[in-house]
This record gives sequence, C-alpha cells and structure tokens, in this order.
Amino acid sequence: MSVTAAKGFVAAGVACGIKASGDPDLSLVATASGRPVEAAAVFTDNKMTAAPVLTSDEHLRRTGGHAAAVILNSGNANAATGAPGRRDAQAMCAATAAELGCEPHEVLVCSTGLIGIPLPIDVILAGVPALAAARTPQGGDAAAEAIRTTDTYRKEVVVPVGGTGAVVGGMAKGAAMLAPNMATMLAVLTTDAEVASADLRRMLRAGVSTSFNVLMTDACRSTNDTVIILASGEAGPVPDDDLAAAIGEACAQLAFQMASDAEGATKVVKLTVKGAASDADADAGARAIARSALCKCSWFGQDPYWGRLASELGSAGIAFDQERVSVCYGGIRVADGGVSIPHDEAAVAAVMAERHLEIDCDLGLGDGTALILTNDLTHEYIDENTGGS
Amino acid sequence: MSVTAAKGFVAAGVACGIKASGDPDLSLVATASGRPVEAAAVFTDNKMTAAPVLTSDEHLRRTGGHAAAVILNSGNANAATGAPGRRDAQAMCAATAAELGCEPHEVLVCSTGLIGIPLPIDVILAGVPALAAARTPQGGDAAAEAIRTTDTYRKEVVVPVGGTGAVVGGMAKGAAMLAPNMATMLAVLTTDAEVASADLRRMLRAGVSTSFNVLMTDACRSTNDTVIILASGEAGPVPDDDLAAAIGEACAQLAFQMASDAEGATKVVKLTVKGAASDADADAGARAIARSALCKCSWFGQDPYWGRLASELGSAGIAFDQERVSVCYGGIRVADGGVSIPHDEAAVAAVMAERHLEIDCDLGLGDGTALILTNDLTHEYIDENTGGS
Repeated sequence: MSVTAAKGFVAAGVACGIKASGDPDLSLVATASGRPVEAAAVFTDNKMTAAPVLTSDEHLRRTGGHAAAVILNSGNANAATGAPGRRDAQAMCAATAAELGCEPHEVLVCSTGLIGIPLPIDVILAGVPALAAARTPQGGDAAAEAIRTTDTYRKEVVVPVGGTGAVVGGMAKGAAMLAPNMATMLAVLTTDAEVASADLRRMLRAGVSTSFNVLMTDACRSTNDTVIILASGEAGPVPDDDLAAAIGEACAQLAFQMASDAEGATKVVKLTVKGAASDADADAGARAIARSALCKCSWFGQDPYWGRLASELGSAGIAFDQERVSVCYGGIRVADGGVSIPHDEAAVAAVMAERHLEIDCDLGLGDGTALILTNDLTHEYIDENTGGS
Repeated sequence: MSVTAAKGFVAAGVACGIKASGDPDLSLVATASGRPVEAAAVFTDNKMTAAPVLTSDEHLRRTGGHAAAVILNSGNANAATGAPGRRDAQAMCAATAAELGCEPHEVLVCSTGLIGIPLPIDVILAGVPALAAARTPQGGDAAAEAIRTTDTYRKEVVVPVGGTGAVVGGMAKGAAMLAPNMATMLAVLTTDAEVASADLRRMLRAGVSTSFNVLMTDACRSTNDTVIILASGEAGPVPDDDLAAAIGEACAQLAFQMASDAEGATKVVKLTVKGAASDADADAGARAIARSALCKCSWFGQDPYWGRLASELGSAGIAFDQERVSVCYGGIRVADGGVSIPHDEAAVAAVMAERHLEIDCDLGLGDGTALILTNDLTHEYIDENTGGS
C-alpha cells in the first residue's frame, strides 16, 4: 500500500516508454481531492543540482509548503540538461496539474536515471493522462514499482502514528549515494495526520538525518536525491512526538531496505565509531571507513582485518591515538590498545559470514559517537557500473 | 641498478623467511663506506603510524639528517604492533649497524606488508648477517626485488643530474595509497651529488609533492608510507636546480610506474581539474573524482559518462556552477556549459580504450589547477583485497 495507506491519497504507476525495457517508468502520488495539502521536502546538497530538484524546491517555496501531487519518472535523471531540462521539469508539473485540476506550482517532480541525457519529454507528456486516469486509493504498489531503477525490489513502508489511527506510509528507490548509472535516491512519504507545514518540515529533516543521511554505500551524493512528505490531515491532529517518531521510523525502514538492496552488496554493515573527541570526529571517522574500498573489500572477503579500519581512522583528519583504539566485530573484540588481542576466531568467522554485520570502533578519547549504514564492495557492483550510459 | 647507480652505495636483497612463498623479503641500501651521509625523508601523515616510521623519524632527528643505511622488509608492515613493534624496529637497526660498523641510530628502517601482525623478528635478525654480507655496488636490482609485495614488477629509476656526471637512482614498491593487504608505498633514492641535508630535504619534499602525492589509486594513506634519500657526495657539488630537477624526475617516474602497476588496474588516468576558484578547490575536486567508485568503474567500462565526474565535482564542497563546467576525454570535449555537446563518438571510444587516459574538467570559474594520477576499479582489485590477512 505504501503511499496510499494514509487516508486522502491516490497513486498510480505506468509504463510510458522512457525505459527501452517497457518496464513501468512514470509514477504519481496525489491527494484524492486534487487540492494542495501540507508538504515538506529535503533535497540533495550536490551543486550539480538536477532540474526537477530546482523545480520542486521553487514550487514549495512559492506555496509556502503545500502540494497536491508528486510526479516521478525513472529511466532518466533530467540532470546536467541545462535550460531545456528545467523547461521539461516544469512541463511535467503543468501536464499533471491539468489532469488534476490544480496549479502547476502545486505539483512537485522527481526524476531518476541517466545523467546528461535530454529527457524524452514528449513520451512523458503523452503518458501523463493515462497515469492520472490510473490513480486509485490502491495504487501505492504500482507507484513504488514505477520508480525502480536497479532496485531488485520495491521499497515500501507503513508505520502507525502511535495509537492515533493515523499512519505514515512511504515508498523509495535506490540506495542513497550508491546511485549507479541511475542517479539518486528518491522517497515519497504520506500521512493522514493533521500537522502544519513548518512542523512537518522539522520532523522530516530530523527523520532524514538519522536514516537516509547515515546511509553511505559508495559515498556519492546524487544530483537528484529528494525526500518528500505530504500530509492530508484526514485522520485529524496527533501528538507531535508520535508523528515525529513515525516519520523517523518510516525513513529508517526505507533506508535499511535501500542498504539491503545496494547494488551488488552481499552485506549490510552497521558501523559505529565511538569514544571520539566529538560527534563530528566520530562521523568523519565512520565515513572514512565506509568510503574505503579496502575496508569494503575486507567485508566482502569476510576478513576481520581491523588494521584497515584503524588505518582509515588514523588518516581521517580527526583526533586519534593509536594506543587507545579498539575494534569489535559482532561484539567480539579483536584489537585493543592499537594491537591485536586473542579472541575466539571461529566466533568472529561466524559473525563475518552473516549478511548483517555490526562493527564497533572505539577511539578511547571522548564521548563522540556516530552510526553509519554501509555495504561491502563486490564484483557485481563493478559490473553494474561499468557501462550503460 | 637503481639505488646503486650513484657512486658510494651498495645494496642487497635476500629471502629471510618472512614470506611463506620463500620470495625475497629483506633489503638493504647502505653507503659503501658504512659511514653516515646526508639524508632526508618524507613520511606518511596517517596517525596510525607504523613502528618503523616512528623509528626512522626519530633517528633522522637525532642525527640531524644523516644515515648510513636503510633496512627494509616486505611481508609484514610492523604496524599496529604497539611497544613490541617499536622494539622490533629498533632491533632491525641495531642488527644492521652491528654488521656495518655504524651506530644503530644511523640506520633507517621501512616495513611493508600485513598490518596488525607481530613482526617475525627472530627470522629477520637471523637474516641480517647474510643480507649485509651480500651487499655490493651491483645489488640495486636485488634490493628492489626484495621490497615487492603485490607489485608485478620492480620499480627502479636512474636520472642524470644535468650534465654533471652525478645521478639520482631509486627504487620503490606499491602503488601509493593503494596498499592492499600490503600496507604502503616505499621509495629509497640515492645520489652521489654533494648536497647539504637541509637542501636535500627541501628538494625531496618538492619532488614528492608533485609525484607520489598526486598519485591516488584508492584514496588510502598507508600507515607506513616512506620516501628516503641518501646523498654520498662522491660526485661533488652540482647546481641546486639540476639536482632538484633530477630528484623530481626520479620521483615522478617511480610514481608513474606505481600507477601503471596499481592492483588490478587496466588504466592509468591523468586527471586534470582546471578553472577552479583556487588550486585547493581544484585539488579537492580532482581527489573527489579519483576517490569515486562510480567514476573509476566508468573508466574500467570505457564509458565517457561525464555526468558522474560533474556530480562528484558538484558535491566536493568547492565553488561550482553547473552552467560553466566542461569535460574532455583525451582532449575531445563531450560536455560544455553543464550539458552534453555533439562530439566524435568514435574518437572518444578510441580514447577510452587506451591504457593511458587523459581527462580534463574545466570549472570555468578561475585559475585553480590540479593534477592527479589515478586508476580504474576492477574485479582484480576486489580479488586482491578480499582476504589474505
């Protein structure tokens, strides 16, 4: 059900012909009424910003945080496409608005796929009427299906808002920052809770910061990354804390689904760096490890080679004392005080063989802590990223 | 000939038993006289500093920039080995000094290989007498052979110092910052030019900054990276500029050999970022691209997918205007003003198929320029880095 689990929303997904495969590639999430509701978004900070990001940001500013629909396409990112790309993004909004009976600036737009290729706008515009006609309160799955690129399965979530009867539903595509040929992670959330746009924005930012923003597969921040939430208000007011928690949980579940489906990954690694001089140091250290091809290869090889992790921490530009560092795989300490220590090697081997791996690095310096979700580096990752533009 | 091309030096390489394969693993470069000469070094800035780096740095400080010999082992990095590791590094110097008749602090030491494993010091100390006995003015090749780890060939260089009759010779191992299971790039240079230690240090730093420091294969800075130069003075004084140029050229040739032999690489990529707001911005942008698994995969796949490069530049934290960026492969412009432009696709395909690839990104903002030597990312890289600790 995903984005149509909350009352007041309809959705659809169709194949309009962007993808040569004939797979679904055009997706719509809209209010059932066609009227704008409270809305908020978080966009990529990549300065090579894609046209749809510029357009959606502008529309949200113009409406003061309201939107009636989101139209999304896969198969082409409409990034690095210049002024024609911006006109195309506007045209997608206008065509959608014409079908729904709202204003063009009440529509948000997302694209994902190849960078630097002109959007096949005629094909898309020709597909919008059929897309709009297909929208139903049961259309969440079809909408989620149509935003897939290299995703091997749909990412969907429904989280209850405490005991209020309201829900937060959502769909997503892509592993954040993994973004192969296909640029981007996209997520659209909906809720029927009643909430002001400013509060919605604050809750979304908080949810993103502890979910999508700690997901780091290959360290690439895409040109198109977008997370949008719409709130219909049809389930009435709910406690702020309950809604914030549900939004956070929905983001976290989608982020975990992305990490689990990252291109070619055989492992999801939950990496914690603690004992750092500051949270910022911990975060920089964790990201240095998560970015390291050497560390990622060691996980793929199921090799508890902690020296690589320590070497990354030592060159991460953070406070570091090699005499204090310790490393645990699956809670089993393999190094302490900067040297290998005796440990149950069979138990560590069993931990390394699991699909989900927890690694803790303690710098022994302070209270700074950070968590990153990441993956291993595999042959399949290379195969998926060596061509196809 | 490498490190024994300059007058006044002897060298040797033997197998002492560190490597299970029985391959040569212990190497010596020394003055023929056994007396200390002018010396300088550049070490890794990784704070997970290996014991031999700490020892060599301490010895050079104590002598004010003089050394009689360098002993090197491959097969074990003596990194993350704590106080016992530091005692082992000292013991290698003391054993070498006893054979040469100099002081222990007149010997420098380098190690390369696995991190976090205690050094098999007894095996090494037992091998030092045979190593010292094998030293000859023709021993350069054997010395270069014994420092190989995953290198598929010896890295050696000899460069004349202008028309002075003096030379700079050198040997190296490893692709800087690629450092698989094997930590490290090591290089030892020698010259028979007469030069003061302080000048030698300045020239070495300058040479390293434009060679080894622009070599970036997987962005890892090793725990053991070391470049050492010894100057016997036997060829007499030479013009400063000539010597500085020869040292720079020797470093550049060794760095290029490393890039060409980087683990599993099928391509050496000479990446230039220009038109940046500053040299620092250009450098940060070039390193962001060189670090990107997505960009590296596109080179392996011979895919001129410039959008990935632009996306990395856009998220590198530097001044960037997507309307101004242009990208050339082998001098052929494929993107300008942030969008794809018509170009000779067959010519670009031919360029991408070459082993040596030149890529230029122009940010269109200022005069900042940077050059980085890097590689593609391949299946073989993963295979070499998925186990073996």
